[in-house]
Amino acid sequence: MNLRIPGPTPCPPDVLDAVGGQMINHRGPEFAALLERLSSGLQPFFQTRQDVLLMTCSGTGGMEAAIVNTLSPGDRVLAVSIGAFGDRFAEIARLYGADVTVLEVEWGRAAEAEQVRAALRAGSDYRAVLVTHNETSTGVTNPLKEISDVVHAESDALLLVDAVSSLGSIPLVTDAWGVDVAVTASQKGWLVPPGLAMLAFSDRAWEASERATMPRFYLDARMHRDFAAKGQTPTTPVLPVLYGLDAALARMQQEGRDAIFERHARVAEHTRRGVKTLGLTLLAAEAVASDTVTAVRVPEGVDGKALSRVLRQERGTVIAGGQGKLAGKIFRIGHLGWVDEPDIDRALDALRATLPEVRSEEAVARA
Amino acid sequence: MNLRIPGPTPCPPDVLDAVGGQMINHRGPEFAALLERLSSGLQPFFQTRQDVLLMTCSGTGGMEAAIVNTLSPGDRVLAVSIGAFGDRFAEIARLYGADVTVLEVEWGRAAEAEQVRAALRAGSDYRAVLVTHNETSTGVTNPLKEISDVVHAESDALLLVDAVSSLGSIPLVTDAWGVDVAVTASQKGWLVPPGLAMLAFSDRAWEASERATMPRFYLDARMHRDFAAKGQTPTTPVLPVLYGLDAALARMQQEGRDAIFERHARVAEHTRRGVKTLGLTLLAAEAVASDTVTAVRVPEGVDGKALSRVLRQERGTVIAGGQGKLAGKIFRIGHLGWVDEPDIDRALDALRATLPEVRSEEAVARA
Repeated sequence: MNLRIPGPTPCPPDVLDAVGGQMINHRGPEFAALLERLSSGLQPFFQTRQDVLLMTCSGTGGMEAAIVNTLSPGDRVLAVSIGAFGDRFAEIARLYGADVTVLEVEWGRAAEAEQVRAALRAGSDYRAVLVTHNETSTGVTNPLKEISDVVHAESDALLLVDAVSSLGSIPLVTDAWGVDVAVTASQKGWLVPPGLAMLAFSDRAWEASERATMPRFYLDARMHRDFAAKGQTPTTPVLPVLYGLDAALARMQQEGRDAIFERHARVAEHTRRGVKTLGLTLLAAEAVASDTVTAVRVPEGVDGKALSRVLRQERGTVIAGGQGKLAGKIFRIGHLGWVDEPDIDRALDALRATLPEVRSEEAVARA
Repeated sequence: MNLRIPGPTPCPPDVLDAVGGQMINHRGPEFAALLERLSSGLQPFFQTRQDVLLMTCSGTGGMEAAIVNTLSPGDRVLAVSIGAFGDRFAEIARLYGADVTVLEVEWGRAAEAEQVRAALRAGSDYRAVLVTHNETSTGVTNPLKEISDVVHAESDALLLVDAVSSLGSIPLVTDAWGVDVAVTASQKGWLVPPGLAMLAFSDRAWEASERATMPRFYLDARMHRDFAAKGQTPTTPVLPVLYGLDAALARMQQEGRDAIFERHARVAEHTRRGVKTLGLTLLAAEAVASDTVTAVRVPEGVDGKALSRVLRQERGTVIAGGQGKLAGKIFRIGHLGWVDEPDIDRALDALRATLPEVRSEEAVARA
């Protein structure tokens, strides 16, 4: 099966071998060594000097952790949303009692730093700005560095970043860019199965966590930090994913961070070119198109669901549909993690063969 | 390594093979079939007609889900605590704003139904009673059926049960016993790695979830229920543990629920007898001693840490220490999940050989 969705992504065989390893005591020395190796192995990819926290949950759990550990009910929050995951980030903050203003950007476009500046000037006293680095639902990457510069120039707000489908695959310089909380998840660019969120908190975010009163126990970051200092997690961790990450980081270190970023840029460009060659239209402008997932408009006369079904059943290719208001209007091709041009070529070949089969008779007649 | 802690527990080879399976689309038909198979496969072990929810988190996350989905800040809660996990359950409720009264029972003893009755009569308007079915930190099993009868006779409170280290290993009849939320976790009696909590909500608990205002998103039970109805989880699930559980349930169905319960009772009795034969003292009275974990007093003149270390380093046997106020005072032997008498015999042999080596000179002289 050519699994070409933007997560879970395929895992290399040596990673899967590690995932299937036998259980160990999560309060013993072997686990302490593993935890230390993972946290320090992740730092160069996060480009942070902070410890990287490992939480047993999906990326959404990590996003919730970013909010509840730094904010209090009533805090003013600016949520920059360019798609379904931006909306989710805002919704979590609202559910926990934040006073959320949403800067809504048309799906398929990126947020511009000047829009964020205007929104910050129109409001006041924002305690946090929520930004999606790479919006998985639309295949758009925000100019995070520029947005961060504006956030820190215009306010004292914390910058909380959903980097679920960007970190480890495309450049994100957590410390130098002034990201206060960066969240990613195992099943995206990290070559491992889902079940693990990884987070880095800046010094300012740690200070905020001392005052933040949103309730939390399972997702308590300080508890994770304090347990990590003694080589443990607060509660029983998802060992299979941690074992896998150990093997995956060895692979990623061997390839090298910059080479990984270059490969993702190259494969993404290859994907976009191939899609256009098939006569299809990209959702996003190429200047902001994501290097980890490509959103393609479902052509007129084609039933998106039939396209996905035939690709899966007849051609061993799994693509993702649209989410929220883009359901039925786009399909998405994931190209992050363990991926290279031949994987994309096979998917494009499958698309080329399938598209004529799922075009309605009217559309064929019209063409 | 003979991993004899009360979770994570060793996994059979066929389960580990399944755990290392390749990723699939968690929004596709293959996953929907898996989810349905797991939920319905769990029902006979929960002894419930309710759907069993699968959440990607540890057992503690499941305990938090039981609370935040049924309660509101200010709700009066009676927490029956007989150990570290009972304290944790109470603490989570308190953190989310519940008005918690703790019925504290000496560690090593069970709560008696009449104590619970007295506590309920002394207070009023309890919205929920929190009970640990099997207290992992002390190796004690509460008389849950009796406690449940009292709770429902004396109040309208919901009965929220931490069944993390009991369900699937010892009898718990969720529906017939009137348990409103039952929570268990994958790494205990289920033959699979950590990373998954499993929960059943009664009709009353579902009704309570409509009114409950404690904030939640990642652990939202209704969102899990609604997504399960379309064969999905709200966020990306921990596939390796779900794959493993599929293989584990096949094994458990083959052995049979009652045979599993009998094996646990038999192996536990074998463990207690063996420990006493070594001249050691059990923490719990035998009438309430757990059939999934046995707590043993560290004998005078023995350094508990040295005992654990030598067992691990010299004899390939991993035991658990004491938690909280029992740290250094007890050690614990896990016997749940994939376990039989020979595993215990090997652990007892290792103990027999190690104990004389870690006794202080004074203790030896005194003896």
